[in-house]
Amino acid sequence: LDLRAILRVICVWQRDLRERNGLSNHWTEQVIARVNARLASVFAIKREHAQHASPHAAELIDAIAELTMRGGKRLRSVAVYAGFRCISSAEEQGLERIADVAAAIELLQSYLLIQDDWMDDDDERRGGPSVHVALTRRYGQAKLGASMAILAGDLAMGAAFELLHGAPFPPLRAAEGRAAFDEMHFEVVCGQQLDLLGHADVSLIHHLKTGSYTVRGPVGLGALLADASAAQLTALMQFSRPVGIAFQLRDDLLGTFGDVRSTGKPAGHDLREGKNTALVAEARSLLGDEARARLDAVLGNQAATAAELKEITEILEKCGARARVETRLAERVAEAGRALDGAPLLPDGVAMLRELLSRIIERDR
Amino acid sequence: LDLRAILRVICVWQRDLRERNGLSNHWTEQVIARVNARLASVFAIKREHAQHASPHAAELIDAIAELTMRGGKRLRSVAVYAGFRCISSAEEQGLERIADVAAAIELLQSYLLIQDDWMDDDDERRGGPSVHVALTRRYGQAKLGASMAILAGDLAMGAAFELLHGAPFPPLRAAEGRAAFDEMHFEVVCGQQLDLLGHADVSLIHHLKTGSYTVRGPVGLGALLADASAAQLTALMQFSRPVGIAFQLRDDLLGTFGDVRSTGKPAGHDLREGKNTALVAEARSLLGDEARARLDAVLGNQAATAAELKEITEILEKCGARARVETRLAERVAEAGRALDGAPLLPDGVAMLRELLSRIIERDR
Repeated sequence: LDLRAILRVICVWQRDLRERNGLSNHWTEQVIARVNARLASVFAIKREHAQHASPHAAELIDAIAELTMRGGKRLRSVAVYAGFRCISSAEEQGLERIADVAAAIELLQSYLLIQDDWMDDDDERRGGPSVHVALTRRYGQAKLGASMAILAGDLAMGAAFELLHGAPFPPLRAAEGRAAFDEMHFEVVCGQQLDLLGHADVSLIHHLKTGSYTVRGPVGLGALLADASAAQLTALMQFSRPVGIAFQLRDDLLGTFGDVRSTGKPAGHDLREGKNTALVAEARSLLGDEARARLDAVLGNQAATAAELKEITEILEKCGARARVETRLAERVAEAGRALDGAPLLPDGVAMLRELLSRIIERDR
Repeated sequence: LDLRAILRVICVWQRDLRERNGLSNHWTEQVIARVNARLASVFAIKREHAQHASPHAAELIDAIAELTMRGGKRLRSVAVYAGFRCISSAEEQGLERIADVAAAIELLQSYLLIQDDWMDDDDERRGGPSVHVALTRRYGQAKLGASMAILAGDLAMGAAFELLHGAPFPPLRAAEGRAAFDEMHFEVVCGQQLDLLGHADVSLIHHLKTGSYTVRGPVGLGALLADASAAQLTALMQFSRPVGIAFQLRDDLLGTFGDVRSTGKPAGHDLREGKNTALVAEARSLLGDEARARLDAVLGNQAATAAELKEITEILEKCGARARVETRLAERVAEAGRALDGAPLLPDGVAMLRELLSRIIERDR
């Protein structure tokens, strides 16, 4: 039984449903283009603002812009707009109104990535140096570079709030949106803490760290801003929860089996870092004492050789850990698809959510 | 000519003006009590929220609460309320409405102090361990402790925005308040960057780092929320700018000549850290080559002995650097006082600003 084949079938089936709804395939690209344009103008304005305020602040803005514009799939922006369009049929106007909030979430992500990379000692991100590495090179000292990276993160976070504060929505809806944004921020920070502590409950970490601001938060935020009812929000959360888990499982698979050229991270990255991934958790319950000892010897060993990493990757494959994670991924994808059937949501928005789901499963980075 | 005597005369004169206005001397204590009560309830709610979300998040909330409630003069809260009362005569109701915003600024300060102490490697704050030191003890590793401190700072910042987002003001005023808060945050981060880089323009650092969120920001925020006119805001900024500078000059004097038992920081702290204070800047222009070399040898030397620190403290006194800084402080205080004379502001609010000014000059920590 080839589980990847099942995933492919599900993707085709989702795409089918999407096309039956007659939705243009260009909407994703439109959202991405609009959000990228908004981000570019935010960085230009902030840069000028920074130059006016201080002789060095633009260096921090440039570091954020470099990280934000160098890559990023804008999945969260797409999720905000899909959530909005599940409730509101305002196509063009909706995109304009949602652009600020989507850009705010992208900047929230930049702030989180900057901190995350420093905390994990990750040197690379999106195919270039992580921000604390770039700023250490610039300022010539590791502690100073790390401090500058934290300040760059602060400014990214501040810029996210500025965008959120300026988003053009009626007062009550905007207030609900701000509260949702605050809750998302709270959860992701709690998730990052558990991750750093190597907490045993990997599902809870995924729920808080990735689930919150990757799918649940953005979809809910878009829907709230379009004035969703309680029943609509419930349906969207029933979709978003399993998608968040699927996203993280895909991330874990990519971090170990992904193509280095696509992921932008060095091979065996997650293994070297000793990340408590779903793969490792499954392997621990599947492996005998000897193989488990081998896994533990390499896991988290920064000096692990390419041969050792290859050996562990094969162990994870052969023991069935990879297959189990792929099964769980397929189950979550099916659950998310079912949540949309008959939900009290607009068909265009539902089609967008299905496309988002495909993008999450099919992504190679 | 004893400059401290002049300062004392100015203080008495300000207090005189205040009492002539018949203002109760208890209002400061009322603001402090109300804001402390608000902060205590925020920490209780956040703690419950944290325990519900994650098995470890309450540890971060407790670290913020510990730092926030252990000390702090609540000068910023007092400044918000004084700014509000310069425009609005609503006494009791104003205090209730302003409490959220004042508590938000106190949490903004906690976030900044947490980051600042880690960046400066400061072990103590407000007579106890700084947050990264406390969390390093708790989690047993310096990098993990530092990461946890940054996350605690993130949560403090997030809680500040939650309070700001929930503050009970009409939509337009609340939006102006949020924009002012965002600007304040931007400036203080820019100031921190310049400070870390040892930038030569000490006045600009003071303007951005301390001025922004100690006086200008809070006073302006309180006034905006009371619907201040452009003329009123201008008058308040003419008061706030020199007070921000005076605050920083007082800080520099306390950091070198202050009583260790009051400041809560070790003796000669600013000298050991090699801080680019106004005192050091004045001394550089006043000292001969030999004494300047002596200053440079001790400045920033973490291993400096008590005798060496005492020697430098005496050099700063004898060369006239201390007297010059005290003169500048007195000039700024006088400038701030003049800005209030005949300003289009309510007398109660003006009296509060005068009292705030006295508190800033007289403080010993």
